[in-house]
Amino acid sequence: MIKITFPDKTEKKFEKGITGLEIAKGISNRLAKEAVAVGVNGKTYDLTRPINEDANFAIYKFDSEQGKDAFWHSSAHLMAEALETLYPGIKLWVGPSVSNGFYYDVDLPEGKTISDKDFPKIEKKMLELAQQKNEYIRKDMSKDEALKYYTEKGDEYKVDLISGLEDGTITFYEQGNFTDLCRGPHLPNTGYIKAMKIMSIAGAYWKGDEKNKQLTRIYGVSFPKQKLLTEYLVLLEEAKKRDHRKLGKELELFTFSSRVGQGLPLWLPKGAKLRERLENFLKKVQTEYGYEPVITPHIGQKELYVTSGHYAKYGADSFQPIKTPSDDEEFLLKPMNCPHHCEIYKAKPYSYKDLPIRFAEFGTVYRYEQSGELHGLTRVRGFTQDDAHIFCRPDQLKEEFIKVIDIVLYIFKTLDFENFTTQISLRDKDDKSKYIGSDKNWEKAENAIIEACEEKGLKTVVEYGEAAFYGPKLDFMVKDALGRSWQLGTIQVDYNLPERFELEYTGSDDKKHRPVMIHRAPFGSMERFVAVLIEHTAGKFPLWLTSEQAVILPISERFNDYAKGVMEKLNLSDVRVTVDNRNEKIGKKIRDNELKRIPFMLIVGEKEVENNLLSVRKQGEGDIGTMSIEDFSKFINDRVAEELK
Amino acid sequence: MIKITFPDKTEKKFEKGITGLEIAKGISNRLAKEAVAVGVNGKTYDLTRPINEDANFAIYKFDSEQGKDAFWHSSAHLMAEALETLYPGIKLWVGPSVSNGFYYDVDLPEGKTISDKDFPKIEKKMLELAQQKNEYIRKDMSKDEALKYYTEKGDEYKVDLISGLEDGTITFYEQGNFTDLCRGPHLPNTGYIKAMKIMSIAGAYWKGDEKNKQLTRIYGVSFPKQKLLTEYLVLLEEAKKRDHRKLGKELELFTFSSRVGQGLPLWLPKGAKLRERLENFLKKVQTEYGYEPVITPHIGQKELYVTSGHYAKYGADSFQPIKTPSDDEEFLLKPMNCPHHCEIYKAKPYSYKDLPIRFAEFGTVYRYEQSGELHGLTRVRGFTQDDAHIFCRPDQLKEEFIKVIDIVLYIFKTLDFENFTTQISLRDKDDKSKYIGSDKNWEKAENAIIEACEEKGLKTVVEYGEAAFYGPKLDFMVKDALGRSWQLGTIQVDYNLPERFELEYTGSDDKKHRPVMIHRAPFGSMERFVAVLIEHTAGKFPLWLTSEQAVILPISERFNDYAKGVMEKLNLSDVRVTVDNRNEKIGKKIRDNELKRIPFMLIVGEKEVENNLLSVRKQGEGDIGTMSIEDFSKFINDRVAEELK
Repeated sequence: MIKITFPDKTEKKFEKGITGLEIAKGISNRLAKEAVAVGVNGKTYDLTRPINEDANFAIYKFDSEQGKDAFWHSSAHLMAEALETLYPGIKLWVGPSVSNGFYYDVDLPEGKTISDKDFPKIEKKMLELAQQKNEYIRKDMSKDEALKYYTEKGDEYKVDLISGLEDGTITFYEQGNFTDLCRGPHLPNTGYIKAMKIMSIAGAYWKGDEKNKQLTRIYGVSFPKQKLLTEYLVLLEEAKKRDHRKLGKELELFTFSSRVGQGLPLWLPKGAKLRERLENFLKKVQTEYGYEPVITPHIGQKELYVTSGHYAKYGADSFQPIKTPSDDEEFLLKPMNCPHHCEIYKAKPYSYKDLPIRFAEFGTVYRYEQSGELHGLTRVRGFTQDDAHIFCRPDQLKEEFIKVIDIVLYIFKTLDFENFTTQISLRDKDDKSKYIGSDKNWEKAENAIIEACEEKGLKTVVEYGEAAFYGPKLDFMVKDALGRSWQLGTIQVDYNLPERFELEYTGSDDKKHRPVMIHRAPFGSMERFVAVLIEHTAGKFPLWLTSEQAVILPISERFNDYAKGVMEKLNLSDVRVTVDNRNEKIGKKIRDNELKRIPFMLIVGEKEVENNLLSVRKQGEGDIGTMSIEDFSKFINDRVAEELK
Repeated sequence: MIKITFPDKTEKKFEKGITGLEIAKGISNRLAKEAVAVGVNGKTYDLTRPINEDANFAIYKFDSEQGKDAFWHSSAHLMAEALETLYPGIKLWVGPSVSNGFYYDVDLPEGKTISDKDFPKIEKKMLELAQQKNEYIRKDMSKDEALKYYTEKGDEYKVDLISGLEDGTITFYEQGNFTDLCRGPHLPNTGYIKAMKIMSIAGAYWKGDEKNKQLTRIYGVSFPKQKLLTEYLVLLEEAKKRDHRKLGKELELFTFSSRVGQGLPLWLPKGAKLRERLENFLKKVQTEYGYEPVITPHIGQKELYVTSGHYAKYGADSFQPIKTPSDDEEFLLKPMNCPHHCEIYKAKPYSYKDLPIRFAEFGTVYRYEQSGELHGLTRVRGFTQDDAHIFCRPDQLKEEFIKVIDIVLYIFKTLDFENFTTQISLRDKDDKSKYIGSDKNWEKAENAIIEACEEKGLKTVVEYGEAAFYGPKLDFMVKDALGRSWQLGTIQVDYNLPERFELEYTGSDDKKHRPVMIHRAPFGSMERFVAVLIEHTAGKFPLWLTSEQAVILPISERFNDYAKGVMEKLNLSDVRVTVDNRNEKIGKKIRDNELKRIPFMLIVGEKEVENNLLSVRKQGEGDIGTMSIEDFSKFINDRVAEELK
């Protein structure tokens, strides 16, 4: 008998060799039907693989990460089988699952090509094979056997792959007429795969080396229900519409210039103002929490980064040092703000009563990225961190953590990111030697983070071994309106830089002590945050943040001057308003501005001018009555205050 | 007879050979007494030098630039004579007048040194020689004679100097027992020099080359009245007290770090907030004038600067290009913001109706300076320009110029720089070929500037030939409280960059046209401006700008909590207040805070708490009565509004 421990810590004894599927069936038929794989002592197993030892056990459905991985990996094999059937002589390289489906890299037979016109044919063949409900059968083979198999098949890529493996037993999976070298795990049979779509093709050099032959990478996605595929495709369409690169252009927020350089955003007036509003919002919150602004240059002498330890890591894949006419002066573009802030801390002596000190800076940093890695505002070469560094005593860590969490939660709430998860990254339990800082301080810091999260009622995942060598951290991942996860804010304890910069404060014992440093950035970077916000809101920003809060629509050109006067009055009371003074019918003006998603439309004609009123329309809702200019201004400012509460 | 034309254009005939002194005497004895040199057709002449031709004529007193030059140059000769008397065998190199006096570079006899202890001795000898009223006598000599004279005297420096001169007649000046190679002009006699002071000594390599011998440079200053010297020394003392490097440290505004690098300021919290208030002040004004913010990166690809023409000028004395892992990507630290703004202009098409477009950015730029040239915040390697670029039609130039002048005047008024001059720099009249842009456009632009200045009633100096090759400009020089001149704002027309970047707009004729560009920066740079402002105000900033508008002084510790409550209330209504909660007597607290120049002190004790009032003291004036918290907040906010009006 073996002992199976379930996630809720209940235990049950089973015959040795029982399968995950059998255990699931024992719980409920429905669960057994939905299960796609199981977890055995942290490893993912095929549902049908015998379990031979005591185990911590979990059942994975498609909606779990592990479930998707097994499902899409099996689908890659299914696609490969379809391709072998459709393109005899095709040679295969590798076919993993990825975050949104799977792909296979293939070498098509001489003279054959695949285009999007062929996608339906492949999907049809995959569906046909799926419906055969062919079992995925796990087989062990020796390296010699494996080499022999692929040499006979004439697949030099797999031969190369196997040659690189360690000697011993190699596992294969076979379904229908297809066999593939594979560690698994896989679905019980192809019948689980009910809906599939080939998404795209791309070129991919063999082993990622551009000196090698270019293979064809075929991307696909698959689901256990047709409905899920339909939903996924709708979501994809919506994501395309919300793509921040597309909306950023339409909303005139930012642009790029090939002359200025790739990955270096230029903020257009509307974007610059939006960013300024976001920065002012954060500055206000930070001031309330006792942060003080500092401003530092965008370069630093080599010496600064030798001290911080970054210079040693500043390799050939980075922006290279900036030489000067003087041999002993060499500068680096600043990749982070912390070394500069350490030097500001050093500018005067502190006593234990002065701490915590909190330096905040919207600091623009530069990090080289390969041009292929660049993507809109989410992956750039220059970005502005909403950065701050807190220098505190070890006994203040927990309180400071709570305050930072409060700021992050307030920001998430104000910007409608209600859906988020947090991860606490701690030391590797088994190897504490690889971390800097005393054991006592680490324990204090780790407990401070855990307790702070508990007190704030955060749902956290704790990951051991994920801490940086210089301290533990807490990361926030938000889910956007389309359910996609984005890593945003981070709070990071640091024992390393205070040591390297020899930072000090005088304790109540009149002796010198090292402060602890906290790095924190609730947005992460202004660029990335604005990108996420655009995609999350589809460009329909909260009222306090949006570029145009209202547009005035004069019924005819006769009222343009009156409209201009209204605009000036409203602008003076901090309401952001423009006038649509085009010579168009009012119906068309309403339709056009409705599409531009401006929150309010203010219609002015004969009646309104006479009574000094505005007819107010809400975007998406229509007429909401008449108001005086003063009332409308109060109406907007009250709503903004409510949003920022 | 010759014709003498006076500055007021009146003309008078005189005998050929008449001297400036004689002409001055003819006008008034007092004028003759105050005259130190004269101008003859734009050249400065000795008072006693005969005038042999028709001439535009001017009399220079000590208070003119030309007068000071002659006076101090004569004083350098006087000091040299004193040194030769005191240090026989001393060898002389050169001794010019400078902006604040004069110096002489000398090679002291073997074994001799000069220290500040010797200054009184030199001053005494100078005074003694001055009182002898020895005439400065101009003599001509051939190069051979001159070489013979100095070879015999054994002065190899002068021999070297003369060897480098062109053959022909060389002029000497002789006074008392001293003769010096010199073009002049000089005073009639040493008796004019009534007061003198040796200021400092420094080392100076012969010919500025560090491979040569180091000479001793002796600085002095002199005046026609003892009173002027006294005033000058007081001013100097005051300037030292106001030195922005000293006050910047005391006020905790900024610091430097040798690790970050020389010339790269780090703004401390109080400085960062001060700068933010200045920036917000400018942003508000600029928004009212139709400027729109943009944000651009601090680097740009080589290609950007090849297009702008800056790359060709980016020489070995600059920050060197930033290499990257990719051979065809090379970046430069941005030395100015204009190329980036041109690329933003290019991001979308404009019609003639859209212009002018005004892009504003507080853009930080980096320019390498030799470490010896660096000075506090006035000469740095990284600075933030209050930059903006206006893209307009040629017919809009004058209106735009007037608007920029309005902004500059408003800023000067708000920051108490009432005393300023302006210079219009136009093309060289005689060589129009060296300028880019059509003759018609240049005339239009030059007239636009001249007319704009006239309409605004500015007192301007017009300088021909001082325009840049790409356009004419207008510069503002302010005089600070100590009477020192600082070049601040600049407004510059540019025909070059629109051409190089091929900027366009569609005219009313439906054809493509080039916009004109205006560069403008009223402050110049935030760093330099803050430095000038510190020295101008001695750190006593206007109320709207100052870091602490008031300090609350609890009479005893019992009232500390009440004081904290008052502070929070006032801070909420945008009054910047702190609490002095030290356990000190109220008298000492008042004295200490009086010295810190905080504009208002708010005293709270028994009586104040009971009646919910504040006893208000004004810095430098004492008690001004009691006020409620609300009244004090209104009092401050009204004064701030008044200052910003």
